Formats: sequence, C-alpha cells, structure tokens
Amino acid sequence: MEKKIITISREFGSGGRSVGRMIADRLGIPFYDKELVDQIAVESGFAPKFIEEHGEHSPGSSLFSYAFAPQGVPGVMNGLSTADFLWNIQCSVILQLAEKGPCVIVGRNADYILKDRPDVLNVFVHANIAFRADRIVHKYGESDKSPEARLNEKDKRRRVNYQHYTGRNWGQSQNYDVCLDTGTLGIEQCVDIVCGIVEKSREA
Amino acid sequence: MEKKIITISREFGSGGRSVGRMIADRLGIPFYDKELVDQIAVESGFAPKFIEEHGEHSPGSSLFSYAFAPQGVPGVMNGLSTADFLWNIQCSVILQLAEKGPCVIVGRNADYILKDRPDVLNVFVHANIAFRADRIVHKYGESDKSPEARLNEKDKRRRVNYQHYTGRNWGQSQNYDVCLDTGTLGIEQCVDIVCGIVEKSREA
Repeated sequence: MEKKIITISREFGSGGRSVGRMIADRLGIPFYDKELVDQIAVESGFAPKFIEEHGEHSPGSSLFSYAFAPQGVPGVMNGLSTADFLWNIQCSVILQLAEKGPCVIVGRNADYILKDRPDVLNVFVHANIAFRADRIVHKYGESDKSPEARLNEKDKRRRVNYQHYTGRNWGQSQNYDVCLDTGTLGIEQCVDIVCGIVEKSREA
Repeated sequence: MEKKIITISREFGSGGRSVGRMIADRLGIPFYDKELVDQIAVESGFAPKFIEEHGEHSPGSSLFSYAFAPQGVPGVMNGLSTADFLWNIQCSVILQLAEKGPCVIVGRNADYILKDRPDVLNVFVHANIAFRADRIVHKYGESDKSPEARLNEKDKRRRVNYQHYTGRNWGQSQNYDVCLDTGTLGIEQCVDIVCGIVEKSREA
C-alpha cells in the first residue's frame, strides 16, 4: 500500500518540523504546519496566534477557555470548550487536507485523526534533552526559563492534549510506524529513512 | 560514533528475533539470544529451560521463586529472589558480551543494561495484533489459548519485568534510537534500515 500521507509527531526541539519540511521538499508534496494553523484559524474565526498557542495544548489549560470565542459569531461553539471546539475543527481540516492528496502534516495529533486511512505513514521524532536544549536556544534564543523547563512544559502540554483526545500514550512506539532519534541519527538520516520507506511503499 | 552493538527489544510475535538474526548475518557479527540464555544458565546453575521461561518475566511471577535455587550450590543466591539473582547474572553476562566486540543482543533489557555505552544502537520492534497473532500461530502452532491472549500474556510479562528493573516504560520510543513496525514495513525493510544506520555510523 503506497504511503501518501506522512504525519510527523515530535518532541519540542527535536527538529521534527525540519524533518517534515525536508521530506515534503524531497518528495515534492505539500507541507502543512503553519499553513494548517492558518486554515484552522480561518474556519474558526480565532486569531492565528491564539490557535498556534492552544492547538496542541492541554484541554482546560487556559482559564479563559470561553473568553476567546470568535467575535461576531455568537453561539458558534455550541457550548463546547475552546479546546473541544478547536479539536473538532482540527479533525475536519486534517481529514480534508488528507483527501486533497499526498502531503506531510506536522503535529496536531494527525496520526490519530487519520487512523482509518491505510495510506498514512506515522512518524515520531524525539531526541535527548541536551540535543533539544541546544537546538531551541540556537533557534528561538534564550528566555528567563531554563531550556530544560521550556522543553518539559511544551512536551507536557502536547502529551496531555494527545492523551485527552486520543486515549493513547504520546510517544509510545506502537502508535507509529517508525520512531527516530534525531540526536543520535541526525536530521538528514531521519529524512533519508522516511523517504526511503515512502519510496519503497510505491513498489508494493 | 560507530554503533557496534545492536540491542533488539521486541513485542512477542513481531519478528524481532528474526530481524536481529538477519542483521547479525548481514553485518557478520555474533547474535545472542538462546546462546545468551545458555551462558546465563551455565553461570547460574539453573536449567536453560527455566531461565528461558523466567529471564524476561515479571519479578515474583512464580510462586516458587526460591524453590529452584541451583542444586548443590547452597547460599549462592545470597538471599536474593530468583528474579533478582537472574537479573544480576543477566547484567553481568550482557556487559561481558558487549566487551567482547560487535554483536546483536535480542531482549533481556540489554538496552538498559548497556545504557552507559555510546556505541550501542537500541532498536524496538513491534507490530499490530493481527500480524503477530498470525505469525505466532504459523511459527509456534495453535494452543488452547487464543493467539491474542498469548500475545497479551507474554508482552505483559516483558513490560512488567522491564518496568521493574529499569524504571522505564517498555516500548516508549524515547528509550530507543529507532522503533519499527514490522507489520507495516516488513521484516526485510526493518533489517535494511538498521543495517543502513550501522553502516552510516562508521562514516562519522
């Protein structure tokens, strides 16, 4: 079965987003990350920045869950919390994107949302703390929190969100076709491995 | 850093043992599985069959923990339970095997036991229930239990044993350099991927 859609789930700072973009470039297929965020934003009426910050976070992580309902669209959330409302839109957008054709989708629990499609290859990317700490400082700069605290906070939110909406354990290998450590394998080799799998799937 | 030692952890029925043997053959290095069991048996004085059955099982899974102490070697277990006694020998044997040179080691928590060696590549192999159920019936024949029950029982024992001795979550991707699904990727492709990583590590 040809693997047409590649989902990349990733620890913060592991380079999973770069892996995803390089795979998309190599295979010549669309890459959805910020683009996906924007599309969800358009459909929901939320500000893109708000969605970017809350789309993968734990449900109820914000005290203001209901305060940011789309302006001028009263009742549009049908009594759902902001998180549940975003989740429904996210599912709908990701299912539509997959219908459009081959693509790479980073994050946003796409592995679970597309679990009924056999043409999806699910990838999880991770790395040790030192590799990731170095990478986020290099990429996003210093902050008043330690790099380790920033990593733990972001990963915890992704983990709780994934657990809440999928009932699965984030990063548990059995949920993915392939899991790769960018810290020991290097980003380029991870791209080679995933592209190799996709190319091989076309022969079958 | 050249990866000289490959540890393979695996779900029952996933073909992890076959993957390990094929990697060892391809790379021309020793393969330790039954051989390892035999060596542990020799050192401990236990019957090979007893060790094969208990080596990866949960501590205290047997009511007869103390009943099978090596005959003719009174006091050799120093008050340890059978499981803890076997664990100590297992650690010692695996550390010695790794010292001897490049090899493939299947199971027995070798990933954790060798965690301080940077020249180790840790692999986890898994597959969906249907693939594994079909495989164990084909390989080991039918039994009075359903294939699913046999898989769950064996994996549960491995999981509990791993958790008890390592404090880690069995199959959690972050504990391994690479995790592969033999059900979707096929055994041969998994062998290709791991051998490719080892060969690449020699260039660095």
